[in-house]
Amino acid sequence: MKKIIALMLSFSLLSSVAIAEEEAASVKEARNALKFRQSLFQLIRSNMGDLGAMAKGVKPFDAAVMEKNGMRLEQLSLMIADYLATDTREHKLETDALDKIWEEPDNFNEKIQALTTAAQRLQAVAKAGDESQFRSAIGGVGKSCKGCHDVFKAE
Amino acid sequence: MKKIIALMLSFSLLSSVAIAEEEAASVKEARNALKFRQSLFQLIRSNMGDLGAMAKGVKPFDAAVMEKNGMRLEQLSLMIADYLATDTREHKLETDALDKIWEEPDNFNEKIQALTTAAQRLQAVAKAGDESQFRSAIGGVGKSCKGCHDVFKAE
Repeated sequence: MKKIIALMLSFSLLSSVAIAEEEAASVKEARNALKFRQSLFQLIRSNMGDLGAMAKGVKPFDAAVMEKNGMRLEQLSLMIADYLATDTREHKLETDALDKIWEEPDNFNEKIQALTTAAQRLQAVAKAGDESQFRSAIGGVGKSCKGCHDVFKAE
Repeated sequence: MKKIIALMLSFSLLSSVAIAEEEAASVKEARNALKFRQSLFQLIRSNMGDLGAMAKGVKPFDAAVMEKNGMRLEQLSLMIADYLATDTREHKLETDALDKIWEEPDNFNEKIQALTTAAQRLQAVAKAGDESQFRSAIGGVGKSCKGCHDVFKAE
């Protein structure tokens, strides 16, 4: 058990996710926050491919996939605030995250909430099984992505 | 709406996560699967830092963080099978994932289940608030990480 805890600690100081908003104390901490938040957005993105293909008609609608991806998108959306809590503005990073994220936290949180809501709607629509609603529910998720990117992400 | 769906599609073909186990059809697909699975494990890792520090006594126990991280670890553990479903053995990738992942799926799934179970126990213990159980519950999560890495991850 001691060995395992030592193993966990070996990456612990670099691998904490901040809970409350705080400035990165070092470039190392900033880079670490960058890596984790990029991983989170990659994971969010990984849920969008099939959904986009369904909305476009490239793949047939699959309610089970819609529901599962909707659940994962909801879960991941609820992590965003914590993963962006480390304010990295003072460090030179290769990042698409705009300073506005830390300048306009209320606005940023609204955009996060929009994704949570859209992901919940996607699950509800998938469960209900009314195919006429599928495309708009998927579009709602994409719209919430774009709504945030337009303001808080460099293109 | 059309524009948004087009935007989603622009990264859709590269960003699908396979549902059932299947060989990567191209090196592009393999690299994409690699990126997503690495993101998933980074996110899992990001939940371990504070827990390791608590178990070691470097940080005080915080039941709320234990419960939240336990929940996230459980959610993320339930994504692992899908994110490793794309068999990338035939492609040259810089990866720590050993071929055994696709050679011994039942064994791999048992290791995943061990993380799910340990993450559930961590949440239960944190909710119950019996501090005497905290260290072993955290250790149980670390043990499940190590148990899988020992078999399925190159060191």
